Amino acid sequence: MTGERINRQFRLAGRPIGVPKRSDWAYDEVPVPPLEAGQVLVQVDLISLDPAMRGWMNEGKSYIKPVEIGEVMRAGAGGRVVESRNAAFSPGDTVTGALGVQSWSVSEGKGLDKVDLALAPLAKHLGVLGMPGMTGYFGLLEIGQPKAGETVVVSGAAGAVGQVVGQVAKIKGCRAVGIAGGPEKCDYVVRELGFDACVDYKAGDVKRQLRQLTPEGVDVYFDNVGGDILDAVLTQIRRKARIVICGAISQYNNTTPIKGPSNYLSLLVNRARMEGMVVFDWAPRYGEAVKQMGEWLREGRLKSREDIVEGIEHFPETLLKLFTGENIGKLLLRV
Amino acid sequence: MTGERINRQFRLAGRPIGVPKRSDWAYDEVPVPPLEAGQVLVQVDLISLDPAMRGWMNEGKSYIKPVEIGEVMRAGAGGRVVESRNAAFSPGDTVTGALGVQSWSVSEGKGLDKVDLALAPLAKHLGVLGMPGMTGYFGLLEIGQPKAGETVVVSGAAGAVGQVVGQVAKIKGCRAVGIAGGPEKCDYVVRELGFDACVDYKAGDVKRQLRQLTPEGVDVYFDNVGGDILDAVLTQIRRKARIVICGAISQYNNTTPIKGPSNYLSLLVNRARMEGMVVFDWAPRYGEAVKQMGEWLREGRLKSREDIVEGIEHFPETLLKLFTGENIGKLLLRV
Repeated sequence: MTGERINRQFRLAGRPIGVPKRSDWAYDEVPVPPLEAGQVLVQVDLISLDPAMRGWMNEGKSYIKPVEIGEVMRAGAGGRVVESRNAAFSPGDTVTGALGVQSWSVSEGKGLDKVDLALAPLAKHLGVLGMPGMTGYFGLLEIGQPKAGETVVVSGAAGAVGQVVGQVAKIKGCRAVGIAGGPEKCDYVVRELGFDACVDYKAGDVKRQLRQLTPEGVDVYFDNVGGDILDAVLTQIRRKARIVICGAISQYNNTTPIKGPSNYLSLLVNRARMEGMVVFDWAPRYGEAVKQMGEWLREGRLKSREDIVEGIEHFPETLLKLFTGENIGKLLLRV
Repeated sequence: MTGERINRQFRLAGRPIGVPKRSDWAYDEVPVPPLEAGQVLVQVDLISLDPAMRGWMNEGKSYIKPVEIGEVMRAGAGGRVVESRNAAFSPGDTVTGALGVQSWSVSEGKGLDKVDLALAPLAKHLGVLGMPGMTGYFGLLEIGQPKAGETVVVSGAAGAVGQVVGQVAKIKGCRAVGIAGGPEKCDYVVRELGFDACVDYKAGDVKRQLRQLTPEGVDVYFDNVGGDILDAVLTQIRRKARIVICGAISQYNNTTPIKGPSNYLSLLVNRARMEGMVVFDWAPRYGEAVKQMGEWLREGRLKSREDIVEGIEHFPETLLKLFTGENIGKLLLRV
């Protein structure tokens, strides 16, 4: 029976220089092999597209090993268990995990999590209740340590992580100010998500906008973008500010060296700190966060959007939407 | 009687662009005025020359207000009380404080500290037991939080702050590796101060030297210099590393924008943090540190050198020794 199943896959064909090109990918159709003992076969439904994927395509030491040339591209994804030779999973279970950019995934079960569709649909388990949600939740609360009354600024505010950060900041009694590109995204975070304000970086002079929107300065800055925006926020931080370094999407496709923050000595002047985070470190506590965020979702205190593109064949160009800033909310690809 | 006393002073004449020029200073000789109630007259003996002074010469918001044009240059200094109309001080007391670059200083007593010459000579009260010592002690222990067995790296290792950082790291059971310019300074920190090793940045390839001398990576980096050296150390930090941003002497005379650390995303990969410190914040705890460091001095566990230049008239060119890296240990100017 598995002989009839054709796995459509995207494999890494080359290490991109700058923006990934179509030729950096190889599309393959291969038969799904029969399961071995302990394995689970998942029919992939939704594939999560994340900025971090760009980093996984590069050679060199990082927080996770790079995807090898010829390997199926690594990606978080969700789908339905169709066959199982693993006692922990049964056909019909909906699961998420690092299933890869492919239509079928054979898993050993490690890192595979059953999801509760009664709590939220699969798309939200890959977004607000998935890796981006966990990133926003633990990054803000554990690294940023916001206190009620403080001002929290987040870049990439209309993105999968940013939308969570601002709303959790509001729930914790903070003033939440987003940074996003264009009036549509700014409207989304202010009117739909309830942020207090939003800097439109495409409207120019980020420093001036920031000064106006954070008149008392910035206590916590959650940085998803790096580059000039990080530098602008550094001019506006308060004493003892905390900067969470979650990503630097403005720099991921650089062909020149990364732009370091010229204004980093503001950390000295303000006795502030800048700290990196990797969401995987918080895996032992995901359950706690999913429970809390699920409650907030049910109560309507936490909202989220997903931007779902149809057709795995559109993977290469859809991934680029992250870097051109086209998506609002969590970007997903439906197989 | 005070009419006979002539105060020799250096005042800020202009805001320097790049390296301070002789014409950025005005030298004045003015009579010492009679004391008013509450005032103390100090005959200045030793003036502390510190990298931070370069920052005080610039306009703009910082952790302390800039020295105004025409004002006597701010400096820590020490001397002897000659007259007092303040009950807290008596003629003959030896004191330190922000006495300025001048031969006589009239003080209201605020920020003036009596020093115990039985504990150490005045020069050490301006160095290892003064602001640089406090900076090294609190910066390392409170911000760096080194644990026994960890590797601590400090730049400007043969300088006033660096010499303290490495030795306190050793006392706390860490491996201490310095970064300094030239074999004489490296010899000083390794042979005289007991650091485990020293990177000579003038000998080239700082990254390669660091890799060899910190084979297990860097847990704490105490940065006095910024620039390329900060970037090099960022490539070698370990998980959960702490970087103390104490200064950036390589950048203080820049006429172009400050070079931000291009490798700052190593903070993300390594879940590390970079935190700024200003020694004045620890003033309420200076006493505790002086007591502890004084003990270590007596026990011979803490050593220090002072580089004393004679003649207040040499202030302008002596200050520049800090930026050309000529001094070993604490740079002082004897009036």
